[in-house]
Amino acid sequence: MSHYEFECTECFRSHKADPQTLRCETCFGTLSVKYVNSKKQVNTLVGGGTLEMPIPLCSLSEYLSLGEGNTPVVSMPNISSMFEVEAHAKLEFMNPTGSFKDRGTAMMISALKSKGVHEIVEDSSGNAGASVSAYSTRAGMKAHIFAPLSAPRTKLNQIKIYGSVLHEVDGSRDETTEAAEKFVKNKSIVYASHNLSPFFIEGTKTFGYEIFNDFDREMPENIVVPVGNGSLYLGIWKALEELKEKRLIKTLPKLHCIQAENVNPIASNNTWNKSEMKSTVAGGIAVGSPPRKLEVQSVLRQSGGTANSVKEASIVEWQIKLAKYEGLFCEPTSAAAFAGLENLINGKQIDKNESVLIPITGSGLKDVFPE
Amino acid sequence: MSHYEFECTECFRSHKADPQTLRCETCFGTLSVKYVNSKKQVNTLVGGGTLEMPIPLCSLSEYLSLGEGNTPVVSMPNISSMFEVEAHAKLEFMNPTGSFKDRGTAMMISALKSKGVHEIVEDSSGNAGASVSAYSTRAGMKAHIFAPLSAPRTKLNQIKIYGSVLHEVDGSRDETTEAAEKFVKNKSIVYASHNLSPFFIEGTKTFGYEIFNDFDREMPENIVVPVGNGSLYLGIWKALEELKEKRLIKTLPKLHCIQAENVNPIASNNTWNKSEMKSTVAGGIAVGSPPRKLEVQSVLRQSGGTANSVKEASIVEWQIKLAKYEGLFCEPTSAAAFAGLENLINGKQIDKNESVLIPITGSGLKDVFPE
Repeated sequence: MSHYEFECTECFRSHKADPQTLRCETCFGTLSVKYVNSKKQVNTLVGGGTLEMPIPLCSLSEYLSLGEGNTPVVSMPNISSMFEVEAHAKLEFMNPTGSFKDRGTAMMISALKSKGVHEIVEDSSGNAGASVSAYSTRAGMKAHIFAPLSAPRTKLNQIKIYGSVLHEVDGSRDETTEAAEKFVKNKSIVYASHNLSPFFIEGTKTFGYEIFNDFDREMPENIVVPVGNGSLYLGIWKALEELKEKRLIKTLPKLHCIQAENVNPIASNNTWNKSEMKSTVAGGIAVGSPPRKLEVQSVLRQSGGTANSVKEASIVEWQIKLAKYEGLFCEPTSAAAFAGLENLINGKQIDKNESVLIPITGSGLKDVFPE
Repeated sequence: MSHYEFECTECFRSHKADPQTLRCETCFGTLSVKYVNSKKQVNTLVGGGTLEMPIPLCSLSEYLSLGEGNTPVVSMPNISSMFEVEAHAKLEFMNPTGSFKDRGTAMMISALKSKGVHEIVEDSSGNAGASVSAYSTRAGMKAHIFAPLSAPRTKLNQIKIYGSVLHEVDGSRDETTEAAEKFVKNKSIVYASHNLSPFFIEGTKTFGYEIFNDFDREMPENIVVPVGNGSLYLGIWKALEELKEKRLIKTLPKLHCIQAENVNPIASNNTWNKSEMKSTVAGGIAVGSPPRKLEVQSVLRQSGGTANSVKEASIVEWQIKLAKYEGLFCEPTSAAAFAGLENLINGKQIDKNESVLIPITGSGLKDVFPE
């Protein structure tokens, strides 16, 4: 018996942890990893080597790393004094392929490899595709990456350089997913969707464990996260819940969810009509139908966080401000979190003197430069 | 009395550590930091917080960080088995602006800021310019960055995004230096040259301290470094000497120096004629007249390392191979070290089963993509 299984996030039915199983066979709900056999449980050390985190591998030697995680946390003195808060950034763009996705990908590819998978399909706005391309190369797996033709050229080129087959889709982010699903149908290839694979969130979980150490066991009061599919958002929450279960933390941060006004299926609070979706500079969160939407909404309620959406002009402004004020160059998707921070402070969802952590999810070098 | 002074690397004359002093007033030799007052000595912790390293600051609170250093070391299984060596990479492209320069810049800008400097000039092939732009913004300093017009557009845009004034020079890397020197002449602005400032090497020193921990106190037998001005090469050596002085290591690695055949003032072994210099894809090491050439040559002798130069085609090939074999995407300058590794193994300067460490100095995202 394995030390984990997949559990439906809606009806809680258990499923065998099969790489081909991405949805509940009863209710079509999304799945997550549930650890069931503590005697067999494999842990990896995170957060500078002091905390143990359960992982879906049979042994640590199966773990394929390119040096992801353990990203630095830096203060943002200018933004802090501008808003009279205590603002920190965790520099997720300092991952091996330039985005936080590497945390999830390292775990997903390691788990798939350990299960004998040798060919996969992934769809992405660019960052996850580049990440999966790098790690699958490392694992000796063949990867097909579907990405929108409209994705930044640097991201598309990055996907190709590692040796994966790039399938450019002349359509939206959601149509890219459909193309990947169609390609994989009736083939023995595994659909390694970073949005659906329960393994992916087991990797983004490391972010939550690390901040426990970054902040010397004193969690920040707020974490402001740009949310498309929510894989980082949900990974952080899973870590916080595990830490609470271990009685290492009592008070949990509020997890705020930021989306672009042009694509806000979660922040629009159920008035969302996908047909009204417009394009956004924040390509990483341009997801009209996030499969884990119900999970994100549940975390919003549990953590007391706010869902907020931001204007295009504000995203671009904040990309430039972050570089000029703090010396940090991010992609527009990451800048959306700062536009969101401004809204949350103006709307008094974050009060003066509160502490705020913002993950800077992706490198500015990978996207189109602002004018 | 300060805890350090500048010392000429050629005639050993002492100089007061003035930001405007970049050359020996007697013999025009390059300068380095010498610690003279151990009672006042300020140390910072490096290598995961276990090693103390002397630094040229009056207190640690003066240190301005964007999260540089503490980069991961990963094994390279495919390259190792191809060459029958034990090959490791230290991922310097995972620094805040995407290159190892951030180590030197953090220290240089911190030291200059602590001395009241508020406006600086720098010249660069791109990476150091972007780094100095980010850190000077962070420090609230005005920066003028001189870079060749022919530098990759991403690097030039990156310099601008942080808010520095970019001066594009229609000429070679060496003419860019001349333009910066001319601009700074008779002005009160400080020439913060990463090639000449003794502070810069105090920052790159951290690389050498970190590998002491990365390799569990067992140093690799060889380190293969791409060398233009040699700021990383010399910083590593300074760290090794300090560690040896503290009796923490006995045997020092061989430090190999790799240059492009088209620009090889050091690897050509004194037959170099600058007028024969050709262009190279490895823009970061396209330095026809490296001011610290004598220092690099001295380290080559002391460490038993080899100077080797590599062909253009081999550089481009290795950039692609490194991505496809190991999932690591570097800029051509970094790929030159791998072309060099191949030469050193073929020439038996590195034997079978030896351990080799290669710093992957800059991100592939910042340069022109290979076809």
